[in-house]
Order: sequence, then structure tokens, then C-alpha cells
Amino acid sequence: MSHHRGRAPPLGHCCQPLGMGSQETGSLRLSVPSSISCRNPAMVNEARGSCSEGSSSGSEGSKDSSRCPTPILDAERHERLREKMRRRMESGDKWFSLEFFPPRTAQGAVNLISRFDRMGAGGPLFVDVTWHPAGDPGSDKETSSMIIANTAVDYCGLETVLHMTCSQQNRDEITSHLHKAKRLGLKNILALRGDPIGDEWEEEENCFSHAVDLVKHIRSEFGDYFDICVAGYPKGHPEATSFEEDVQYLKEKVSAGADFIITQLFFQADTFFNFVKACTAIGITCPILPGIFPIQGYHSLRQLVKLSKLEVPQEIKDVIEPIKDNDAAIRNYGIELAVTMCKELLASGLVPGLHFYTLNREVATMEVLKRLGMWNEDPRRPLPWAVSAHPKRRVEDVRPIFWASRPKSYIYRTQAWDEFPNGRWGNSSSPAFGELKDYYLFCLKSKTPRTELLKMWGEELTSEESVFEVFTYYLSGEPNQNGYKVTCLPWNDEPLAAETSLMKEELLKVNQRGILTINSQPNINGKPSTDPIVGWGPSGGYVFQKAYLEFFTSSETVEALLQVLKKYELRVNYHIVNVKGENITNAPELQPNAVTWGIFPGREIIQPTVVDPVSFMFWKDEAFALWIEQWGKLYEEESPSRMIIQYIHDNYHLVNLVDNEFPLDNCLWQVLEDTFELLSSPVQ
Amino acid sequence: MSHHRGRAPPLGHCCQPLGMGSQETGSLRLSVPSSISCRNPAMVNEARGSCSEGSSSGSEGSKDSSRCPTPILDAERHERLREKMRRRMESGDKWFSLEFFPPRTAQGAVNLISRFDRMGAGGPLFVDVTWHPAGDPGSDKETSSMIIANTAVDYCGLETVLHMTCSQQNRDEITSHLHKAKRLGLKNILALRGDPIGDEWEEEENCFSHAVDLVKHIRSEFGDYFDICVAGYPKGHPEATSFEEDVQYLKEKVSAGADFIITQLFFQADTFFNFVKACTAIGITCPILPGIFPIQGYHSLRQLVKLSKLEVPQEIKDVIEPIKDNDAAIRNYGIELAVTMCKELLASGLVPGLHFYTLNREVATMEVLKRLGMWNEDPRRPLPWAVSAHPKRRVEDVRPIFWASRPKSYIYRTQAWDEFPNGRWGNSSSPAFGELKDYYLFCLKSKTPRTELLKMWGEELTSEESVFEVFTYYLSGEPNQNGYKVTCLPWNDEPLAAETSLMKEELLKVNQRGILTINSQPNINGKPSTDPIVGWGPSGGYVFQKAYLEFFTSSETVEALLQVLKKYELRVNYHIVNVKGENITNAPELQPNAVTWGIFPGREIIQPTVVDPVSFMFWKDEAFALWIEQWGKLYEEESPSRMIIQYIHDNYHLVNLVDNEFPLDNCLWQVLEDTFELLSSPVQ
Repeated sequence: MSHHRGRAPPLGHCCQPLGMGSQETGSLRLSVPSSISCRNPAMVNEARGSCSEGSSSGSEGSKDSSRCPTPILDAERHERLREKMRRRMESGDKWFSLEFFPPRTAQGAVNLISRFDRMGAGGPLFVDVTWHPAGDPGSDKETSSMIIANTAVDYCGLETVLHMTCSQQNRDEITSHLHKAKRLGLKNILALRGDPIGDEWEEEENCFSHAVDLVKHIRSEFGDYFDICVAGYPKGHPEATSFEEDVQYLKEKVSAGADFIITQLFFQADTFFNFVKACTAIGITCPILPGIFPIQGYHSLRQLVKLSKLEVPQEIKDVIEPIKDNDAAIRNYGIELAVTMCKELLASGLVPGLHFYTLNREVATMEVLKRLGMWNEDPRRPLPWAVSAHPKRRVEDVRPIFWASRPKSYIYRTQAWDEFPNGRWGNSSSPAFGELKDYYLFCLKSKTPRTELLKMWGEELTSEESVFEVFTYYLSGEPNQNGYKVTCLPWNDEPLAAETSLMKEELLKVNQRGILTINSQPNINGKPSTDPIVGWGPSGGYVFQKAYLEFFTSSETVEALLQVLKKYELRVNYHIVNVKGENITNAPELQPNAVTWGIFPGREIIQPTVVDPVSFMFWKDEAFALWIEQWGKLYEEESPSRMIIQYIHDNYHLVNLVDNEFPLDNCLWQVLEDTFELLSSPVQ
Repeated sequence: MSHHRGRAPPLGHCCQPLGMGSQETGSLRLSVPSSISCRNPAMVNEARGSCSEGSSSGSEGSKDSSRCPTPILDAERHERLREKMRRRMESGDKWFSLEFFPPRTAQGAVNLISRFDRMGAGGPLFVDVTWHPAGDPGSDKETSSMIIANTAVDYCGLETVLHMTCSQQNRDEITSHLHKAKRLGLKNILALRGDPIGDEWEEEENCFSHAVDLVKHIRSEFGDYFDICVAGYPKGHPEATSFEEDVQYLKEKVSAGADFIITQLFFQADTFFNFVKACTAIGITCPILPGIFPIQGYHSLRQLVKLSKLEVPQEIKDVIEPIKDNDAAIRNYGIELAVTMCKELLASGLVPGLHFYTLNREVATMEVLKRLGMWNEDPRRPLPWAVSAHPKRRVEDVRPIFWASRPKSYIYRTQAWDEFPNGRWGNSSSPAFGELKDYYLFCLKSKTPRTELLKMWGEELTSEESVFEVFTYYLSGEPNQNGYKVTCLPWNDEPLAAETSLMKEELLKVNQRGILTINSQPNINGKPSTDPIVGWGPSGGYVFQKAYLEFFTSSETVEALLQVLKKYELRVNYHIVNVKGENITNAPELQPNAVTWGIFPGREIIQPTVVDPVSFMFWKDEAFALWIEQWGKLYEEESPSRMIIQYIHDNYHLVNLVDNEFPLDNCLWQVLEDTFELLSSPVQ
């Protein structure tokens, strides 16, 4: 980054009208119409956000460069929350957001993370995580607000707002929480007062007694780093002297630096409209998001209204009271009610987006969003893997393929990196992967409990072949001998990807014979980037893949495979390694091999996945360890089942194969066919 | 480059035999044969050189990375000369090299550079440039040895050896020359004593009197930076007391640090064989290259033998004397003689390569090399543009397309850069191009003299249309009205590229109508990398292109073009700029658009050319200036011809168009067809 700079590129000229000057230079003939002026970059919708804005307004990520350090595949990835809101409002594109509270138990954390993944798929603009001073919200516990919010942004790739209250905490504690939030990739704070400890407020030394003080504190200590949200009370805060006084107080919070408002829940659209009118009248111009609470049960409603000191309208009570013991009926009614009110809100033109109080439940909120047509059934993928929303990973656009099914593990093992490769893997990365010691870290843990896993993978194993069968049941989706479907494997916590299903028959055939596949992709010779199965990136582009296959297999098979690979030396790249790291490869110069890439209008080439020989040696530690940690340890020590897994761990090889001839038919199945043939030939 | 490093990648395991350890761990069954061990990376021949060696043995270019910073497309680009020699010797691949002397005049320098380009195309392993203390060889003059050698390495991309003599120069002068050579990208020195000033040698203070002292000095001051060559005398040095003493002295030069030997010319293969035997006997093991002198004329032969104090064998004299006034006959005989001797040398197995004393002439040496089958008729291009051999440009693998026909100008304007983009243009470059003030710099100058240019481009221009005609004559290759072929344009010093000929008909049609094209490429959807016209990079890969067209045209045409481009908004990226820099573009976010890329076995994606909106503003300065500097200034000031060129310069726009749909038929011709139609429609 140390080019000599001659002069700044003449970008400032971009938007000057053409032709004016030409007429002054005594031209022989000329007729440039005044209609010619700078076109907006309208080519690809996804790219309308401005990168330079993004890097100049935030305090992080500004590079010594006059342009974006990486092609913008997804402008939202480079924008802060308020910019995303502004852009959506300009284009009339309504959003939704989802509120969660931190879980009470470790298993609750595992479940919540997997809920983030499922609900994140619907396309929320952001999620927010509440803050409960009594629950040690800023700690490193897996159930803390801080860690849950960090997991949402870093591991689940969600734009995340962390709530923070100022009561019951002094100035230094709050500052330290904010520093920690920043360090953990959080960029948005919902600033709240919080509840008093007793019934009465006491003015404490060095403490804040109002949310506006917290807003001012954040701005004075962190400048423009955080986007700040504040709460609005459509009926006035219960403690406020009057509605007018409360709106005046909200105005103060906004003037102190808040970027947008989320309202307390309410039951009638008119409540919100009146509130917005009052806000507008007093000069509040920032986005105001209505808080939607789909009624999900009689008791949760009663508890909530009690806490928030709201009154449930009589007409709602009239419906609910008679069916109060019928949960399904109440939920259906709640959904109906929410849909009707949301339609009214959206139709008013006063609402840029809807904020949902989910109570950590999925069904009601998803149903409301689906009925409103706001749930994104087919989200466009900016890259073929799930991107992190941590600011330091903003430029990341290439990863080794090995962690394709374990993206959270990849993020975990690279969390100490200061820079992330973009453009080229070999260029900016000398990979130093963290050790994966903690296989039981909540964000990496299998969703499935031990008893379930035993039913899937076998209460008792009798031979290597019984292991082969587990792989084939996973691939076929058929129930196993005990009638259980195998929905995950140690290397794949999710059912088969749609892309992998394209090769299901071939995969089944080889797994039956002891080629235990854990990762694969078909070759793709230029499919549209909008392809529902293999597409990614902005529309108008083309995506490509080299066929890839990764598997564990025995020494015998490796021996035959190596014989066969001689015939394919110019076509197939391979890496074969055992648990001790003894490695056979024909990769030229240990260079990475790009196996997924995309060509887009007006952009540089993107190559998001590579087979990297160096990273493979780090991956193999993890891939081999999963045999023992996730599978072997289900069984008693010294038990035959455990010994079979241990044997495979100690003796099998991990193999990856790339067919470089992406325009031709995938030859890897033929390679394995030839291998089986050689294995069964009498000479062998 | 600041990843935390956990531990070094376990590359050391690569070559351990597999299976040994497994047997120790109590395996249930195992049979890994000892035949399994590390395969050589034999996949692509071009990649056999070792990158890590290259960066560890040289003092420059070592990066904070455990691997190559860039995919190795061409291993030779990353190797030093002695490594290239070693690799060729291992593979039995004989090379040749070419010796030149610096020119006397500026025009001689222009001619020599263009000879470097022509002779470089045949694939010499290196060229060398002689050093004449009387000719100010280390100065900045365009005729100095230093500048000619720098031009060969930097602008012509040739591995270059600079001669240097130590007589007549003191230690400090020599050190300063060596520093300058290093700064200018030179990595190889041929260390010589040089001739005495008078007839007698005087031992001067602080001076070297022998080549061995120069070798020692280079090694002590510059360590291993330079590869060093020394001269060998197959008949013994004329001043040596004996042949044996002279070979002993040669041994001292090698022991002092020389890497290889080039011999004085000789007339009989046996002379060389005896010399090599003597060298081997005394323990000299480095490569010894025979110096070949194809006799090209009676007088040049006489002069040379006089200078070098050699004797011409009687049988050669007997042939030459009778035909001494017939140059062609002598040259033919010289070629015959050289071919015969070279065959004998090559057949002996003692000769790794042949060194040619060209006397700055092309015909004889090229003819000998062609007859020997050593002239490379179809050199493989490592990248689609001519790479520089300057060490600091070693990683460069992406350039803006604009300078495609003016690569030397591009090198000139980026010579001050400390880093060169590789992998991604937008990533490592904030382009600050040097101003191109000196259009008459010898290495950028047109080969064609002014009188020739006037015959091609018109002694007198009468209208813009007469300019259009010059472009169409250039494209058609037909002689113009005056019977002269137009073999160059200000933007293209060479005739049409083979690739451009693919689109000749379409180009002709639009140039006739005032779309004055200066750069173009067809779209390519995956041709083999070995394709003789569009191929580049190692074999086994596929190359791709987006269609590109760049032209000057009038304001009227631009106005219609912009109307038409609305229809192609999602498909075609455009930049339209006038001389003042007023710019219209639809490039998203000012991002570069990759228009040439290649996919290779076992490598990352390479994208060697981009259309970069920022660089385009620097290119347009040059492209517009060439109208005046190269064409307008051929005519008198105020003359009508000059005014027509000036008018075009002041009023035309420079346009570039990219068709992003590389798999479909190129739509750019249709865009222009539509534009012409709109221009000729009555409404317009």
C-alpha cells in the first residue's frame, strides 16, 4: 500500500455536465444536448450503496486507498445500519427486524443460535438482543446478552443491535461494556434506562438516570462509531407526566444522537399513527419502527402487559377470555390480529419497517411475515458460503472449501486473524488457524442430543461396514434399521445441501463401498448467478465450479486410488493425508486451487472457495478429531463400537480430489469406479 | 500481512513415506506399500521451479508469507538466471543467448529496442549488453550500456546480463555502477577486466587490475544478489603465459563467486571441447557456454580477430578470400559454418546452451537458430500482455486494458510504483500514473520516421473523413491513395494483432463512419489456454474474455450512442470522456471490470486485464495527447491539416464499451449499428 501518489484521480469530474466547455473552444461543429450528464450507476441494483461513504463515516476499516478494497458484491455488507435503512426507505423496500432475549441455559443458547440461522434465512434487516442487568449481560458466559449478540453478528452473519440499560450500572461499567461490544463486532446499541432496582429511583453517584444520558455518553465516548436506537412509547411512558412530555423527552434522545426509534408494543394501528404524528409535529425525522407483538398465549400476554403497564383493549379481551385454555386458537387469533394491524400500518406509508417481539419463538412471527409477503423465501446469497457480519470480516471473500459444512468452526478458528483474505487466498494469508480444542463450544455444538445421535449412528457398531451404512442412510434420507432418519453426521450438522442432492446416486454408490464422503460439489460451467441451487452474487453474472470430492477411506483403497490417479495426473489434483499428517499431493507449488468462481457485470472476478494445500493440514486435524469427539465418545471406553471408530481414526486417510476440467463431465466418479475395479481385480 | 501466527504449517511432512507409522499403532489390518510416497508436483511442467527457493536465496522480494504471493503461471519469472540454467540442464532443454553492444546514436537506440522485441520473441534465455568505458557506459544517456540493459529487462521483459569492466574505473565508481544496476532491475553481471588505456598496465590506487578482483568485490559488497558470469578463453587469454595458467586463473574467478562462464569466440568445436576438458580436469563445474560468432562479412571478421588476437583457420580463409566482396555469399557461408559447428557442440553433450555474438544484427543469428530448431516460433505467453523482467514487477499480473498496444508506455508511467497489483487490481493499487511528458523518449518512440508517417497518414488532410480513411487503411492492410500501407497509428505502433483480425470486417465498417477504434478484443467463452491466437498461461487451462471496444468519436455520435445504450443498460458497461475529463459512465461504484481471465489446473484464478474507470482518466490524457504529439505535429502550425487534428482532439470523445455477456454473441456491433441507424433517422 505504498504507491507514490502523483495526484488524486479526477473523480470529481464524474458528475459535471458534458459539452458546456466544448462550445467555448471554437468548435467547427457541435451539438451535445444538455440531457447528457452523469448516469447513476444503475447497472446492478445491489451495488447502489456507496463504499466511500461507508468507510469515511465509520471509524473502522478505512484503508489507504482511494477505492473499495474489494469488489462490492453486496452493498449492504459495507453499510452501517442507518445507511441500510436510508437506502431501503429511498427504494420503498419495507423491512422487518426481530427481537430476542438471551437464553437461561447453555442448551438454550445452542437452540437460540440455530433459531438465528433459521429466522435469519427469512431476511431480517437486523435482530436485537435484550439486556437484563440481573443476568450478568456483559459477561463471557454463553448465555449473556453480549455473547449472544456477538454470536449473531459474527457466526450467524446478522446485523445485530445490542440493548444496553444504564440503571444499576455506573459510567465505567457501561464504558467497558461498550468497548467490549465494539471489540466483538457490534455496531448498534439500543440505549435504554432500564428498570429501577427497588420501586424508587435513587440518583446514584457516577450513574445515569435517563436513557438520554446513555445516548450522550455513547456519542461523547465513541463518536459516530455506533448506530443508536432508542425506545418510543406510543401511549407515553407509564411514568411520564403526560404524553406530550414523553414525546418531548423522545425528541431529546434523538437530538442527543439516536438514529432511529423502536416503539413499545401496542394493539391498534391508530395508537401508532397518533404517536408518529406527535413525533413529526415536534420535529422528529428519524425512522420510527412499530413494535409488533403477535399474541401467542394467554399467560405470556398477561405477563407482558403487566410488566409494560399496558392495557389490552376490551375487544381483544372479549375474544381471548373464552378461549384462554386453547393455545392454538389464541395463537391463530394473535396471528390474524397482527397481520391485520401490520397491513394497516404498511398501507399508511408511515412505516418503513416492522419490528417483531418474538419472545424467542418462531412460528407466530414467521407466519405473520409469510402472510405479509415479507418473509424472504429465496434469499440471494452474496457468496456461496454464509458471510459473517463482523466488521473486520467485511472484505473477506475467499475461504478454503474444507469448512463448507462447518462455517462457524471456520470463523472460530480464524477469529484471531487481523486481516481476511480477499481476492486471492495465497496473497494475504499465511494461515494460522486456532486449535479447535473446544468441540463443545455452544455455537459449534450439534443441535442433536446424545440419545438422538446414538439412534442415528448406531447404539452399537459391529464393523467398519456398519459405519459405511450410517453414511449411506444420511445420503439416502431413508430411515435406518431402527427406523430413525440420519439427519446429521459429525462433519455435517444439517441435512444434504440441494447442490449435493444432484450427485446423490453417485455418492450412495461409493459410500456403500467405504469411500466415506464428507464434502463435495459438482462441476458447473457457467450457470446464471440467479440459479436457485448453485447461484450466488449479484444478478447478471455467471458462476462456475470445479468438481470436488472429499472423503475418508482405508489404506487399501488409497493404494488403488493412487494407481488410478496416475492416469489422471494432468487432470485431477489430489491431497491424501492420514491423522499423523503424512501427506501425498500433486498440487503444483502448494498453490491453492480455485474451485468456485463468479464473473459479474462491471466487476473483478470473485473466487470464494479454494482448495488450499496448507489449510488442508489444519482442517485434517479437525476432521479426524470429529470421529472421536463427536462419534467415538458416544460409546464407553474400550467398547467395540468405540474401538471401531478409533481404528478408522487411526488408519483411514482423508482424501480430496479436484477435477480441473470444469467444462467436461465430472471424471471423479470414473476415478472411483476405476479404483473399485482395481481393488476387485484378481491381481490385486 | 499481520496474521497472528499460531504455528508453522506442517509442510515438512510432505515427503515422508506413508504407512510406516500406521503399523506401529496396532492396526487391525493394514497394507500400505512402500511404493507410496510423495509425488513430484508433475502436473504442469511450467511450475516445477521452486518459489520458496527463489525468495529465500535472493535478497529482494522476500515477503512476510510462507508461500508465493502470486500464483506461479511461469516459474521462470520467479527464478534467478542460475536457477533457470539449472532447471534447463536438468530437463535437457538447450537454450541460447544473444549479445549486443550499445548503440552510438539515439535512433540507433530506438532500433536496438525494437530488435530486442523481435529477437526476444524467439525465446533467448538471456541477452547481454557490452560495456565500453570510453562510451560513458554507466550514464543516463539513452545510448549507455546501463540504460540499454535497463530497457531490455524492464521494457522488453528480457533476462539481461550487463557487462562491467574494472579497468579505467576505481572501486567507488564500480560500486556506484553496481548500485545503479541493481536499482534499475539488473540482476546479472558479466565481470571483465577490460582493456588497458594505453598499451601497458599500470597498477592504480584503489583500482582492480583483474576480473577476479571485480568478482570478489561484487560478492563482498552485494552478497548473493547478482548472478555473475566470467569470460573463458578456449585458446587461453592472449596475455596469459600459458593455456594452463589461464585455465587456473579461470578457476580462481569461479571460486571467487562466478556462476557461469561464456567463452570467447572460436572457429572449431574441438577448441571448445579441449577447453571444457581442461576446465573439468581442474575442477570447474559451472555451466560453460560456447561463444558462437556467425561470420557475417569480411571486414567485420578481420576487425574482430584483430581485436581479440585470434587466428582464423586456414581452411576458412581459403573459402572467404575469393568471395570477400560478396557479402551475401560470405554470410551464407558463415551461417553454414556456424550451424555445422553448433550441431557438433550440441551433439557432444558438453554444451547446455549457445551464446551468440550478434554484432547487433538479426539475420544470420536468427537463421542459425532456426536451422538448429532452437528459435521458438510460437512462444507461449505467460500472460496476455508482455511481462517486464524487472524484479519489482515479478508479481505483477493485472493491468488496465487501455495500454494493451502501448505496454512500454504503461511501464514508463508506473515505474515509480513500489508495489504492483496482483490478483486484484482494486486491491493493491491506488493508481498514481506518472505524467507522460516525454513522448519522444527513445523506448516509447515510433520506429517509423516522420517522412514515412506523412506518407501513411496523409501529407495533407482535408476533412475529418480523411482521418477516418487512415484508420480504415490501417485495418484493411490495403495501400492508401498514394500506394502506401498504413502499418501503424499513433496508438498502435504495430500492425493489427491476430486477435483483432478476427473482427476486421466489423471494425472496418464502423471506422468508415467515424467510430475511430484504437483498441478491441472479441469475447471468448473458454478456449484452451494453448490456443495459438487468444491463449496464454500454462497448458491445461481455459481462457475467457469479455468483448471490448475503445474508440474516438464525435459528439453527435456520442449523443446517439447514449440513447442506444439505455437499451443495453444491464449488459454493457461504458465510459465516455472528452479531453477535459468530463466523464459519463455506468460502472458500478467505479469498480474495475475484469475483461480477460484464465482458469488453470491447481491454481487460483488469474485476471490479467481489467477496464478500470480510475485508470481510464489517466489513459485518456495520453490517448488524446497522441493526436497532437504524434499526428498533429507532423504538420505546420495553423495549417488546415493540423487544425483538423486539433479539432478532433478538442471535440471528440474517447469511449470504451464492455459487453458483460461473454457467453453470448458480442452485442457491441449491434450497439453501433443501432447508433448509426438513430443518427440517420429523420427525427434525429
